[in-house]
Amino acid sequence: MSETRILFHFPLDPASRQVRLALGEKRLAFTEQPVRYWERPAELVNLNASGLTPVMRDGDLVLCESRAILDYLEETFPEPALLGRAPSERAEARRLLQWFDRKFDYEVGGYLLHEKMEKRLLGLGAPDLASLRQGREALRAHMIYIEGLVSQRDWLAGSRMSLADFAAAAHLSVIDYFGDVPWNDFPGVKTWYMKLKSRPAFRPILADRWPGLAPAAHYDDLDF
Amino acid sequence: MSETRILFHFPLDPASRQVRLALGEKRLAFTEQPVRYWERPAELVNLNASGLTPVMRDGDLVLCESRAILDYLEETFPEPALLGRAPSERAEARRLLQWFDRKFDYEVGGYLLHEKMEKRLLGLGAPDLASLRQGREALRAHMIYIEGLVSQRDWLAGSRMSLADFAAAAHLSVIDYFGDVPWNDFPGVKTWYMKLKSRPAFRPILADRWPGLAPAAHYDDLDF
Repeated sequence: MSETRILFHFPLDPASRQVRLALGEKRLAFTEQPVRYWERPAELVNLNASGLTPVMRDGDLVLCESRAILDYLEETFPEPALLGRAPSERAEARRLLQWFDRKFDYEVGGYLLHEKMEKRLLGLGAPDLASLRQGREALRAHMIYIEGLVSQRDWLAGSRMSLADFAAAAHLSVIDYFGDVPWNDFPGVKTWYMKLKSRPAFRPILADRWPGLAPAAHYDDLDF
Repeated sequence: MSETRILFHFPLDPASRQVRLALGEKRLAFTEQPVRYWERPAELVNLNASGLTPVMRDGDLVLCESRAILDYLEETFPEPALLGRAPSERAEARRLLQWFDRKFDYEVGGYLLHEKMEKRLLGLGAPDLASLRQGREALRAHMIYIEGLVSQRDWLAGSRMSLADFAAAAHLSVIDYFGDVPWNDFPGVKTWYMKLKSRPAFRPILADRWPGLAPAAHYDDLDF
């Protein structure tokens, strides 16, 4: 473990998971500091005014928000390259980063994770069934889109694994923790996710557990 | 005007405005193609599956979503540098990009622009007064935050103008089109905005008009 590189993160936060996957693929050691962001702890808010995870300290440098951390890692530790090298590859990976961090997060996570996770963490009561249904319908539309991508490509953004795969896997893996991903209806997406799930960088994510929130039975199963 | 560089944008879209400002500061010629994104026109949806602006064609390359375009411009046309050079400068500019594109957009634009602009464009009826109030309160909190930044720095991310300034100005300028920015309560923010407003790259934005949506009287006034 590095003494100087510290990641403040929440284990079930998709943005934090993207950074953990990138650090893992680049084989960069770091100390994990899980934070309960919803309680706005001083150690987090003093570093990032938005109060959001992830935040990384690297020596004297403080990096806030996932995209700033991912860009920093790519610029400072370019091997292995996780954005591609040709402008067209980089553009496609970045398009999909935005797709998952904004569109998927808003249309799927904003319903399913709010109902199943945030309400539990914040003590806001039982999930609303209409919101769960809306999130599951949106998830199905996204699965169709991803299935279309992986039917034509080895990885989401093209022939190489990229941050786009990590973004998609980070968001899907948290939904999967709560058992809501209809894997069996999307064999291409399932095969793609199995490839990611079996990477060493994915292991810490499969080991994540949070008190009071039990994962689905297949969550850490590589042969799900 | 360049024949090969085409920007598909909506004049009152903050994400599009960031790209127009960056193109202007880098003195890169481009052809403007305004699109009514809410009608999901084929020319836009065929290029970007999300159906969102901005999208830029540069020769054979198609770039979707503002951050992908801004990163491409920075990598391909590095002068003048709009992200800074030191890792700490770049990290701070990127933190603020996320702040405005996510937090400000969600807390302020999601109310004020939805009520005053999107409802008009979509024919959804009159603005909801409670939502307008919520947006204005959030805007005031953001103005306090920006006032704090510019009281300590020449520009939002530090001693040099950066994409963080363009992001903030892009979001604020659309709110300002509808007359909702309380400039006189925030003299530091007003001075900072006057500096940006007087730049040549800002002129096309001050000339923006959309049928049926009249701007506030001071919108294009450099001495407001």
